[in-house]
Amino acid sequence: MRKAIGVDIGGGSIRASLFDETGKELESFVSPTPEHLDNQSFLKILQDTIRPLAKSGIGIGVGSPGPLDNERGVMISSANLQGLKNLPIKKSLVDEFSLPVWYENDANCAALGEAYFGTYKDTESQLTITLGTGVGGGFVNQGILYSGYLGNAIEIGHTTSVIGGALCGCGVRGCVESYFSTRGFLGRYEEKSNRRLSHAEEFFQLVREKDAVAMEILEFGTLALAHAVRGAVHLLNPEAVVFVGGITKSYDLFGKTLETEIRSTIFPVLNERLKIGSGASLSGALGAASLVFSKEKV
Amino acid sequence: MRKAIGVDIGGGSIRASLFDETGKELESFVSPTPEHLDNQSFLKILQDTIRPLAKSGIGIGVGSPGPLDNERGVMISSANLQGLKNLPIKKSLVDEFSLPVWYENDANCAALGEAYFGTYKDTESQLTITLGTGVGGGFVNQGILYSGYLGNAIEIGHTTSVIGGALCGCGVRGCVESYFSTRGFLGRYEEKSNRRLSHAEEFFQLVREKDAVAMEILEFGTLALAHAVRGAVHLLNPEAVVFVGGITKSYDLFGKTLETEIRSTIFPVLNERLKIGSGASLSGALGAASLVFSKEKV
Repeated sequence: MRKAIGVDIGGGSIRASLFDETGKELESFVSPTPEHLDNQSFLKILQDTIRPLAKSGIGIGVGSPGPLDNERGVMISSANLQGLKNLPIKKSLVDEFSLPVWYENDANCAALGEAYFGTYKDTESQLTITLGTGVGGGFVNQGILYSGYLGNAIEIGHTTSVIGGALCGCGVRGCVESYFSTRGFLGRYEEKSNRRLSHAEEFFQLVREKDAVAMEILEFGTLALAHAVRGAVHLLNPEAVVFVGGITKSYDLFGKTLETEIRSTIFPVLNERLKIGSGASLSGALGAASLVFSKEKV
Repeated sequence: MRKAIGVDIGGGSIRASLFDETGKELESFVSPTPEHLDNQSFLKILQDTIRPLAKSGIGIGVGSPGPLDNERGVMISSANLQGLKNLPIKKSLVDEFSLPVWYENDANCAALGEAYFGTYKDTESQLTITLGTGVGGGFVNQGILYSGYLGNAIEIGHTTSVIGGALCGCGVRGCVESYFSTRGFLGRYEEKSNRRLSHAEEFFQLVREKDAVAMEILEFGTLALAHAVRGAVHLLNPEAVVFVGGITKSYDLFGKTLETEIRSTIFPVLNERLKIGSGASLSGALGAASLVFSKEKV
């Protein structure tokens, strides 16, 4: 059975794992990464983490937050890994291990993981939406990751929910990300209550405690997300919509409203066929390994 | 050189034309269609209109407004052709002429026409948006029309501009079609002025005369359309966005604002590459013929 190496570059650590084609994790190595690093020392940690697995896999898939250039295999910069700039991830790994290497942003890796190993793996196409610090997306059609012209697409977080609305991190007003994401919830809560929360769990705890401001923000945010998904479904017409990411831990607080609003606003003919739900809790490393299995298909 | 037959089923007439691969119209026949017709007499008119061309083409492409089932080649119904129901267009033409037949909605045919013969034919992918009675869309990627799961996609007219906004013909509130289309302009104008206009030209004439209500409606409608396009660009990332349809006759009244708003709200990296503009004035029959050239590619 073919095996692939999946590498998940996160904020505080690098995880490299070996997976077989059923998605079973056979071996795994984790290295912490200091917050301040130069390119050369980061690449050395990356190579050292992968090295024990290198003889066992047919290829290496790497996932990290963007912005990145997946054509050239370069991490342009990272909010969580300061000091890194134009990091040549792909070249460094190809030179070291003489294996094929693919590098994608973590939302696309998550989408591939869901498409190959998730709850909806038996559907023809999956639109996977990552709900976390921001809102990301990936679309896999018949096992192939969709990339638009020169490789950027499914940036669903930056579709507009309210024209002229709340200012988003991208500099434009009214993106869905500014209403339904950690950044959005915390920003809207601070605006309305002058109180700064530090993470999404704190926001959802307030919702559970029936805090009126938090409930109102979640209610409108859920509507905004539902209509962003409606738009994506009407454009892409996937067989399944899958929600993943840290915020889905609180799916019980918004999932039903979200699904009902999507289903009642899409065309009835699409509603009959569409599957919607939260995804399996797959690791980022498995998503990255799915890149290898996916690219072998093309 | 290969030749294809393109058939445009419109409200008042059927036009069948023979085109060569450069898009040149070699011969054309038009038959008026009475508003009230049963299936059988309509199919006879359709066949009779095509018959003189049947020996010259490698296939027949047919376009009409929806709703239609393009897998089975059936027109489900037509707002402008009452009396028709579940019309087996494809079967009737295959049986009569023994040629391959493809049948698509007119927005998809327009998109194929633009992709093969329009201003942006040399780009990799084109998102074509039809601005008319409603708002339609089609996406052609490397010469292939995008269809989602079981063949419906790019329904950009029914992406949400204002959550809970103006009631759209589809039954949902706030679709972009209810802000930027003939139906939308006339509906919003009647709401605000209690005056019923009969067609888009009348609305645009009021804008030219600086009617404050009409100007305000066009201004917001243009913003709504721009953000709907922003969403589609962030999801699909096409190389070109092309506006076609009757309303583009008044492109001078909104085109610049529209393009500026799109360009200033999409990611800078996409803005650098994206081409935007109004399309060539191609006939519906040429769009339908493009179906034949396109399907031969697959």
